[in-house]
Amino acid sequence: MKAVGIIVEYNPFHNGHLYHLQETKKQTGADCIIAVMSGNFLQRGEPALVSKWARTKMALSAGVDIVIELPYAFAVQSAERFANGAVALLHSLYCEEICFGSESGNIKAFIDAAKTLLERKHQHDSYVQKALKKGVSYPRANAEAWKRLDAISLDLSKPNNVLGLAYVTAILQKQIPINPRTIRRIASGYHDETFSHPSIASATSLRKAMQGSIAQLETIAPYIPAATKQALMQYYDTYGMFHEWEAYFPFLKYRIMTAEEEELRQIAGIDEGIEHRLKQEIAAAPTFSAFMNALKTKRYTWTRLQRMCVHILTNFTKEQQKKAETPTYIRLLGMSSNGRCYLQHVKKRLSLPLVTKMSRLKYDPIYQQEKKAAFAYAAIFPEPVRTNALKEEYATPPIQQ
Amino acid sequence: MKAVGIIVEYNPFHNGHLYHLQETKKQTGADCIIAVMSGNFLQRGEPALVSKWARTKMALSAGVDIVIELPYAFAVQSAERFANGAVALLHSLYCEEICFGSESGNIKAFIDAAKTLLERKHQHDSYVQKALKKGVSYPRANAEAWKRLDAISLDLSKPNNVLGLAYVTAILQKQIPINPRTIRRIASGYHDETFSHPSIASATSLRKAMQGSIAQLETIAPYIPAATKQALMQYYDTYGMFHEWEAYFPFLKYRIMTAEEEELRQIAGIDEGIEHRLKQEIAAAPTFSAFMNALKTKRYTWTRLQRMCVHILTNFTKEQQKKAETPTYIRLLGMSSNGRCYLQHVKKRLSLPLVTKMSRLKYDPIYQQEKKAAFAYAAIFPEPVRTNALKEEYATPPIQQ
Repeated sequence: MKAVGIIVEYNPFHNGHLYHLQETKKQTGADCIIAVMSGNFLQRGEPALVSKWARTKMALSAGVDIVIELPYAFAVQSAERFANGAVALLHSLYCEEICFGSESGNIKAFIDAAKTLLERKHQHDSYVQKALKKGVSYPRANAEAWKRLDAISLDLSKPNNVLGLAYVTAILQKQIPINPRTIRRIASGYHDETFSHPSIASATSLRKAMQGSIAQLETIAPYIPAATKQALMQYYDTYGMFHEWEAYFPFLKYRIMTAEEEELRQIAGIDEGIEHRLKQEIAAAPTFSAFMNALKTKRYTWTRLQRMCVHILTNFTKEQQKKAETPTYIRLLGMSSNGRCYLQHVKKRLSLPLVTKMSRLKYDPIYQQEKKAAFAYAAIFPEPVRTNALKEEYATPPIQQ
Repeated sequence: MKAVGIIVEYNPFHNGHLYHLQETKKQTGADCIIAVMSGNFLQRGEPALVSKWARTKMALSAGVDIVIELPYAFAVQSAERFANGAVALLHSLYCEEICFGSESGNIKAFIDAAKTLLERKHQHDSYVQKALKKGVSYPRANAEAWKRLDAISLDLSKPNNVLGLAYVTAILQKQIPINPRTIRRIASGYHDETFSHPSIASATSLRKAMQGSIAQLETIAPYIPAATKQALMQYYDTYGMFHEWEAYFPFLKYRIMTAEEEELRQIAGIDEGIEHRLKQEIAAAPTFSAFMNALKTKRYTWTRLQRMCVHILTNFTKEQQKKAETPTYIRLLGMSSNGRCYLQHVKKRLSLPLVTKMSRLKYDPIYQQEKKAAFAYAAIFPEPVRTNALKEEYATPPIQQ
């Protein structure tokens, strides 16, 4: 059986994701699609709109065969660590290829860029550092450094290209026997906030249209599969809300206000004295977005600040981050009957434990952080929903479809 | 001018407190009554029903001349540290006497007990330790140790007697030139939860009758001065709530769930491995009282556990507690014109700075903790009340009446 891996967040799953999935199957001839998916918190430093279980249901309904979790320690990270964690997990399940979406759909451009990056990393980094010191923003410094290396045709101001390049670089750098592929995205930029296509819209625009409630579900219905709509409705019925940063702000503010600067300095991503500014700006900030706007400078992008805030919220320390070099387990969130078949097939040769009962991981530092993140994610529920949501987190068996 | 000190929490101020105040004036012939009062959190490990400002108004209306704050680092503590902090502050303002309430009203019993305690401290402590190891609760072990020393006629199962003894002990041990006095309490035990007198009831019974809302204010009206009633109404109008432990539970639970055991071990009062049990019991606890009931054993009294929880909530560490040996400033919360007169009188000979602008204390470790406690106290408000309440905490000038 041939397995192909995809790296996803599905926040929420929409028709663009469906297209990518169908094209992946068609172009690779895969027997089994394995998705490695971020859990409670996402790469850009945000809570997922709905739980990992609800998003797993959406994925399985759309034809994904196996969904595994990208642990927090790799998910809420810059492209490089995110890619290293995801690629390692897909490799551990013997994926022969990985297939990601990009603006150009040209894999050669990614491979060339990755090779150049690996050869000239030092030169590139030193340019970026100099530009940052001059007050240039990180994305711009990064893009300009690439231009100066006149190496590539990739537009690295596009987040999808940055991630794609990170996947290919991870594969080449660690000489992982996975063939990278890319599929051209259609109709919608990653950051687009408006609808410009009859059935394809970005996840960002869908979340924006929803405004955190179920009321606007019909507005987004043309852009999502029926199963996504159903999973969203079911989640809202059960939990009474979708997850957005603002709801977590009382906890973030409480933590920053009562933490010593020395404690904040131990949190992953808190460098260069930003802990002073966090303490300074938090007292008068009534909302998360006011806080972010007060913090934002050219040096710190919105995404980087959001990731810092998630790490504070979930108490993810530099020490934990250092310990989490590479994934130590494969957490199965769900599978189709086809996926179960594939797992039977590879089960005996797995180099990492395939885990469904989380209590077995009691002392694994990567799972320790997963638990903290899971609680932080559930902290905004009233009782008895909060306690039930936590039980679900620990005790839910993989979803079978 | 002769100043007499009293040590109070006024949670809320009631007719029993008024009686104590009037008797203190009458029996001591004081020109000026100085109250040292706990701030946001109280000796038994609870949030104060209303802010220090509202409670200061109640005190001034009833005839107290000067209200100063007992810092968190001394207020949320066992009787010994509580007494040491309070007595030191009253001494710093040149009080000639202190006057506390007790069941017996017999100061000789307190003085004899304090002398015995100081002489036989080692013997007493070693008995208590042995009893604790046998599983006897602390209050019982303490009371029995006293009985064995056959020294005193004080009933040390009464919290007021324990505190009174601590005041007298602090005075004798440090040879502080303050004369201790006690006034016999009337009509109501400290812990009484029912009303048995037409106009005197314990603060505990009043809080219980109020049930956290303004609706039952008429029920308690016979037991409180009109000014207390008015201050309570005004507070509820402005802030929309009274402060009770349950409202803080989401933050406490969030903190314990996301903290590492090692971090909990650094919190004041967390000893002997109780951090394991805190982590173990918190996940399934839907409410503060369920959590406390799950934790309670003979070894850990309710009060001791509550204090631990307040220290976790406000992030008060062992290191901070160690640094806070003795008060470093006198924070003025309010004064009458008579009180202002007295302060003019003693101003030049004060050994501690008399502070009204808190920004001056920026680097004082005792005030650092006060700020954390103040934020934790305000964390339960919705915006914009939360931000306003914090401004009030930092910027309110002393109340003048």
